[in-house]
Order: sequence, then structure tokens, then C-alpha cells
Amino acid sequence: MQRSIQFWFEFASTYSYLSAMRIEEAATRQGVSVEWQPFLLGPIFAAQGWDNSPFNLYPAKGLYMWRDMERLTAQRGLPFVRPDPFPQNGLKAARLTLAIEDQGQKAAFVRAVYSAEFAQGQNIADEAVLAGCLSSAGLAADLLSQTQNPAIKAALIAQTKTAQAKGLFGAPSFLVGDELFWGDDRLDDAISSAAEI
Amino acid sequence: MQRSIQFWFEFASTYSYLSAMRIEEAATRQGVSVEWQPFLLGPIFAAQGWDNSPFNLYPAKGLYMWRDMERLTAQRGLPFVRPDPFPQNGLKAARLTLAIEDQGQKAAFVRAVYSAEFAQGQNIADEAVLAGCLSSAGLAADLLSQTQNPAIKAALIAQTKTAQAKGLFGAPSFLVGDELFWGDDRLDDAISSAAEI
Repeated sequence: MQRSIQFWFEFASTYSYLSAMRIEEAATRQGVSVEWQPFLLGPIFAAQGWDNSPFNLYPAKGLYMWRDMERLTAQRGLPFVRPDPFPQNGLKAARLTLAIEDQGQKAAFVRAVYSAEFAQGQNIADEAVLAGCLSSAGLAADLLSQTQNPAIKAALIAQTKTAQAKGLFGAPSFLVGDELFWGDDRLDDAISSAAEI
Repeated sequence: MQRSIQFWFEFASTYSYLSAMRIEEAATRQGVSVEWQPFLLGPIFAAQGWDNSPFNLYPAKGLYMWRDMERLTAQRGLPFVRPDPFPQNGLKAARLTLAIEDQGQKAAFVRAVYSAEFAQGQNIADEAVLAGCLSSAGLAADLLSQTQNPAIKAALIAQTKTAQAKGLFGAPSFLVGDELFWGDDRLDDAISSAAEI
């Protein structure tokens, strides 16, 4: 059986950017494949009474997060700009991720969206931006119509329900079987755990 | 000038246990001294509308934290039991920490309290337990009277206000100058930062 790790990400999530940019290389090095699992944090936050990102609701936590991201991206040589507005609306990007069948193109699209958002400061709710991300993943812009496909819409709702049922409360999260790891800080442990199974 | 790191901890905090048990050895290895800074998270949480630990208020986050602590303590060969009740009341322990003048005894007392709480499952609000912790740090039990010393009480209130003013929102936190690092996951970065100054 192929060893694999599920990578659960929300496009608005700053720390998911860190993991998205390194997970494939880190996992491949240990013979582990990556399952890309987009979901939405909004409904999960709403269920616990939050109507916004905790980084906006709790200013001290938010101030720290931006500084922490600056330090971590500098350490890793990753470009970083603060998205405006924050959080971005990643609904269409998440639906498009589900619509892409080829795993390599899916991964390339996800990384392109995160780069547009956090390296180039673009608005990922903008269809022109998403068309550019599709293009850089070798996909045609007419895939954009999939954001209105009822089956894809339903699939994203199902993803978010699955995330909640698996105990996810933030992003990025990693599942190895039913074992949950939360945060870019646990990515290496999660991959090691997948490699050992 | 002696390179140093401020270690801000709350006795009820699970992840502070992880840092308390390793910070001195890790810092010393890089020629960095540790300033032990107890504070209370209760007033900081209350100011943002929480009347309990976020791990109790948000069950998915709590469930994950206990599993994460199990994994991390196992990796590090640390004993771990889940305190009952959780969170523990660390008020007296924090006051005693401020009352201890010798830095070596202060460190030994802090580690003894965390061990009583998270390794032995004792109630750290219990004066008999605290007397045992004082004893293991080479201190007499009559120091317990300091928990009612108005100057010590005021000093702990001032600590918590300083923590808030420095932008702290959780524990453990580390300050190198005004640069804030949050969480046991950032301890190594914080020490490296202190060592480079």
C-alpha cells in the first residue's frame, strides 16, 4: 500500500501557505504521497461562535502571527506579503482544486494560488487571478465554470463536513489514518508518522 | 552583556511544562541565561472574553491538545498525566516563584511544580504539594506564607500586566528584547535569536 498523508488546507490560511510550498518535496523524500484536501474554515469557526479569523478577532494573536510569518518566510527564503483584505475568500479556489483531476496539476494549482495570495498580494477571489493560476498549472481558463457546478459545490461542503468530523479545528492540518496533526510545525512529524506505517 | 531570554510561563499551561523541563539546558548550551517570569493567563483570557481555558471552551482544540501532548512527551521521554481538574490553579505557585530570590532555586521550584502537576498528577493549589516542591528546591516550607504577602501579590499582578503590555496572549512565551516568540515550538528559535544578539 502507498504511504500517504492527507493535507487539509484553507486558502485563506497563512500557515497553510508555509506547508503548501514544502509538503510535496518533504513527503516525497520519505516515500510518502500527498492527498490535497481543500476545505473551508469559515463554517467550522462559525460553529464555535467566530464570525471572522481568530487573527482578526484576537488582535494580540494576530499581531504576533504576522511577525511570526515574517520570520518563518525569511528563514525559508519564501516571499511574503500581507493579503489585503485578510482573510481572503478562497471559496472558488477551493472548488477549482476539487475540479482538477490530475494530482500533479492539482498540486501546481494550489501552489500557484498560495503564491498569488502571499507572494504577489493578489486577490484570490478574482477570476482573472484564478485563470492565471490555472494557466500556470497547465489548465485552461474554461475550468472556471466548474466553480458553479452543483456537484463541485456539494463536494466542497462534504469536504468541510468531513474535516469537522475528523476533529479539524484549524489549518493546515494533516491526517495519517485518523491521527491528526495541526499546524505547519507538525508537518515533519506527520510525514514521519506516515512513512513508518 | 549576558545574553538572556525571558521565559513567560503559566503553571496551568500544558505546553509550558514542555518548555520548563528543557529551557535551561537548551539555553545554557548556547550561552544564554534564562529569566523565569511567571504570570497568569486568566486575566488575559478574561480580557478577550474567555472564562476558561480555550482547550475547554473549544472541545476539538482541547481533544487535539491532549493527543499532541501525549505524542510530544513520549518523544521526549517525559512522563505525562492529565491534571484533574484542568486547568489547575497556579496562583500560589506563581506567587512563590516570585518570592524565591536565588535563580537556581527558582528554576528548581518551577520544574518541581510542573512535575507535580503533569508527571505526578498532584493538585498544585494544595499547600502540602507546594511545600514538597519547595523542599525539593532546597527551600523551607515557611516560605508558603509569602503567598499572602501583599508585595508579592502586587508583583504577580504587575507581571501579568507587563505580559499583556508586551503582547503576550498565551504560554509559554519567550521574549528576547521586545521580540516575542510563542509556544514550545518556537523555543529553539528564541534561544538562537538570544544567542546571536
